[in-house]
Amino acid sequence: MQFPRDIKPHDGQFVDGTHYFATRVYFEDTDFSGIVYHANYLRYMERARSDMLRQLDMDQHAAFESGEGVYAVADLSIKYLTPAKLDDDLVVVSTVNKLRAASVIIDQTIYRGTDSIASASVQAAFLSANGRPRRQPSTWTQAFAGVMAQADKHRKEEQPC
Amino acid sequence: MQFPRDIKPHDGQFVDGTHYFATRVYFEDTDFSGIVYHANYLRYMERARSDMLRQLDMDQHAAFESGEGVYAVADLSIKYLTPAKLDDDLVVVSTVNKLRAASVIIDQTIYRGTDSIASASVQAAFLSANGRPRRQPSTWTQAFAGVMAQADKHRKEEQPC
Amino acid sequence: MQFPRDIKPHDGQFVDGTHYFATRVYFEDTDFSGIVYHANYLRYMERARSDMLRQLDMDQHAAFESGEGVYAVADLSIKYLTPAKLDDDLVVVSTVNKLRAASVIIDQTIYRGTDSIASASVQAAFLSANGRPRRQPSTWTQAFAGVMAQADKHRKEEQPC
Amino acid sequence: MQFPRDIKPHDGQFVDGTHYFATRVYFEDTDFSGIVYHANYLRYMERARSDMLRQLDMDQHAAFESGEGVYAVADLSIKYLTPAKLDDDLVVVSTVNKLRAASVIIDQTIYRGTDSIASASVQAAFLSANGRPRRQPSTWTQAFAGVMAQADKHRKEEQPC
Repeated sequence: MQFPRDIKPHDGQFVDGTHYFATRVYFEDTDFSGIVYHANYLRYMERARSDMLRQLDMDQHAAFESGEGVYAVADLSIKYLTPAKLDDDLVVVSTVNKLRAASVIIDQTIYRGTDSIASASVQAAFLSANGRPRRQPSTWTQAFAGVMAQADKHRKEEQPC
Repeated sequence: MQFPRDIKPHDGQFVDGTHYFATRVYFEDTDFSGIVYHANYLRYMERARSDMLRQLDMDQHAAFESGEGVYAVADLSIKYLTPAKLDDDLVVVSTVNKLRAASVIIDQTIYRGTDSIASASVQAAFLSANGRPRRQPSTWTQAFAGVMAQADKHRKEEQPC
Repeated sequence: MQFPRDIKPHDGQFVDGTHYFATRVYFEDTDFSGIVYHANYLRYMERARSDMLRQLDMDQHAAFESGEGVYAVADLSIKYLTPAKLDDDLVVVSTVNKLRAASVIIDQTIYRGTDSIASASVQAAFLSANGRPRRQPSTWTQAFAGVMAQADKHRKEEQPC
Repeated sequence: MQFPRDIKPHDGQFVDGTHYFATRVYFEDTDFSGIVYHANYLRYMERARSDMLRQLDMDQHAAFESGEGVYAVADLSIKYLTPAKLDDDLVVVSTVNKLRAASVIIDQTIYRGTDSIASASVQAAFLSANGRPRRQPSTWTQAFAGVMAQADKHRKEEQPC
């Protein structure tokens, strides 16, 4: 099958240590009250986190298949600010807030244009095949640390003296 | 169509001001890592909250259809403690933590037997048709207040002197 | 944790070779058009099929974990007859239509009282760990054959001469 | 909020009357058996159909809000050919197979590179606010007819003599 050249799934990207990922609201995301069902924002945020890892060359699927481990959400808090609706174009903006040996905390806000839709802080723990916390692969820790350094540098440049 | 008499969906129940609701883990709830996908615990908790309202004779569907209003989650924090797996029998235990004019905070823990699976606090805001916070119907406020009084009474009886 | 005695998830049941399973429509199942999102009926039907297996003492989870195999849907056709809405009590009625060495065809209709909501025929193939079709465990084949015989016997008794 | 310029959700496109839409497999789409849960392919196909309408300037949300009507799936058959897995890049290829006054039949195949993942035929009926079949808006019928004519023309050019 030959597809048009630009038919490929959306890729997010890092700019100055901040990650941007776009998604759109479909029928499946809404509920009878006309807005996005609250649990589905967590799916948007998870797509964005998976894309972060992909952009940083961390292969979650391979790590799981090889028995190395897999991320699981350990703690999550979210504020719902403005409801999103069918056909809305959203952008999930994510930053690495804290990096520990066996977990990472990622802050995420969903925007529709300039409106904040929902804002969350998510702690993901790296777990071994038997479900115990374990150190993240060192290349992954380095990649996250690099992103944090970039964001930090950018923040300082933005607010001089 | 004639169905066997006891074929009806599970109903939760209140005992001493605490609400109990059972649910089972199906294929749809799990992800490739073998455990329940983190956003799906929010669906279990929402089923339990909807059942609470049903047991208290609050008709969400009618309130929405009549234009009176609808609950939307405003704030939620959740800790994931032990992963649930396919075929697990779960019980969601819910209590009303705080009641305000236009919102209610419900604390919920999911158990598998004696194991705590996940524990959350959920603030639901009552919204008018145009999305603004509005007072909950007075019969609803009274029903929640009644449940809180029962739980309070039970707590005092359990811990005398 | 001590739960009220009757707080356990709904179990379906076989009567005369036909399987009955009840479920209720929650927020998560609906979409902005006010009715159940079409893909979600497939989830109801899958819950019913998983319950069939459970009632017949087939342990899908164990079969998967031991590397024996797992069912995957191979072919499905469904007619949507009447939309279901929030809070509807539904019953999924399932019969085994055809049994082959490596697959089984199950006919399923969802009812709300006497209304037919959706009607489907689903072929599930048993797959080995590497995704190839393989014979279903012989105890499973026997269990399905037993159910078909019961349904057949019942049908004949209903329509004498 | 200022976003990078190319951070916007994926848009599908029509080429010679055939519609192409890309999507990626995330955690949420898989189940414990390691592959995409069967009902979730229906969500991919629905995203593609919604994108078709969007590319043809049919505003489903506005039509629903104005009380004009909304599409609902009436009939669907799907064959599952090869399982998709986490991180797979998929393309949904859709063509308009038949156009009637109050419904449309769309044929859809999901590909991963050259592999066919699943193939379906979906009849969507246009329904009035009270759930009765009604004529599709004439501009929509014309848009679908235009796409069918393009596909037809392309097919003839491909197979001369």
